[in-house]
Amino acid sequence: MFPNKKVQKLVGSKVQVEMKGNQHILEGTLESADDYLNLHLVDTVEIADGQRLRSLGSVVLRGNNIILIVPVEN
Amino acid sequence: MFPNKKVQKLVGSKVQVEMKGNQHILEGTLESADDYLNLHLVDTVEIADGQRLRSLGSVVLRGNNIILIVPVEN
Amino acid sequence: MFPNKKVQKLVGSKVQVEMKGNQHILEGTLESADDYLNLHLVDTVEIADGQRLRSLGSVVLRGNNIILIVPVEN
Amino acid sequence: MFPNKKVQKLVGSKVQVEMKGNQHILEGTLESADDYLNLHLVDTVEIADGQRLRSLGSVVLRGNNIILIVPVEN
Amino acid sequence: MFPNKKVQKLVGSKVQVEMKGNQHILEGTLESADDYLNLHLVDTVEIADGQRLRSLGSVVLRGNNIILIVPVEN
Amino acid sequence: MFPNKKVQKLVGSKVQVEMKGNQHILEGTLESADDYLNLHLVDTVEIADGQRLRSLGSVVLRGNNIILIVPVEN
Repeated sequence: MFPNKKVQKLVGSKVQVEMKGNQHILEGTLESADDYLNLHLVDTVEIADGQRLRSLGSVVLRGNNIILIVPVEN
Repeated sequence: MFPNKKVQKLVGSKVQVEMKGNQHILEGTLESADDYLNLHLVDTVEIADGQRLRSLGSVVLRGNNIILIVPVEN
Repeated sequence: MFPNKKVQKLVGSKVQVEMKGNQHILEGTLESADDYLNLHLVDTVEIADGQRLRSLGSVVLRGNNIILIVPVEN
Repeated sequence: MFPNKKVQKLVGSKVQVEMKGNQHILEGTLESADDYLNLHLVDTVEIADGQRLRSLGSVVLRGNNIILIVPVEN
Repeated sequence: MFPNKKVQKLVGSKVQVEMKGNQHILEGTLESADDYLNLHLVDTVEIADGQRLRSLGSVVLRGNNIILIVPVEN
Repeated sequence: MFPNKKVQKLVGSKVQVEMKGNQHILEGTLESADDYLNLHLVDTVEIADGQRLRSLGSVVLRGNNIILIVPVEN
């Protein structure tokens, strides 16, 4: 499955996203993703060392600053 | 809602923006946004640790250096 | 006003520009700007902590490395 | 062989990928790659100093944040 | 003059270039520049604190990693 | 000679490449380069302070993370 398709398949489920300028991991439900991998997450929390750090709610992430996207296993 | 649509819907309301090369968060009223997520904010302030740091007024932000955009709840 | 239009309107006036790989702020008169927000500044000075650091004269800035552009109030 | 072709030829085999904002190396089986070098890896592990650090499973990597891709010799 | 035009006008003369991942300044004669501001410099030297550090000769610089380009006054 | 042409002319010869997220220099034989300056190097070694650090063999480098490319004189 192509990278973009893989991301589209994750819409509706929980993902963790590592961003370039951000030391922490963002975890939220993937609401939508476009071709540039810009992401819209809802119920987003910032996580550091396995701890919830901050609740961010609805967040838009700029695709080119995404390092990696990992699905969260249930 | 797609990431870009989500951002367009925020025009006219307060947002916080985390930038790549900038340690602080920018908070302002979103005046406009284009397809690259270049943003024009007005009444912008720089925030660090919940404190107003500097008042910047009208600011143009380069989209590719945006990490994330969060709506500010009223 | 769209971000690019806002920048075009600043041509001829003083702006401060924060760059990604550069700790200091650049201040100069905006001579021109293109669609990528590449900027041509003249009479440019590098500023750190409110102090003039270095005079650079005519400078071309690569748009994708711009964090933010702020008009300088007179 | 062109860089993109070289990467396509690695589909199905193990690769190590060095990312920009990530101190560690990612090693996994290359499931797919697109023209921007966005990668989909499976059975991915994070490696630091030759040690397995974390198992990430299925991961999507944003192409523009890839520094380099090296095939893992068997 | 537009930023790209300004750079084209500098072909044949000495420029200093500040790069993103490079602590030092590169100084050389601008041999050519394309629309992405990729630059080909010849007789290039790396400079730190006003001192010649290393002679690099013919160098190709990737445009998107350029912070700024300054003409060197004679 | 335009920057891209200059790089094409280096195909088959040894080059040193400085990458953005990588403290070391990569030296290898340039197998191919595309328009984005994505590079395919073979017989690649990582160099730090003039010392061979690690042998990487065949490597694909993402163009947008290249700082500079220098031909290695024989």
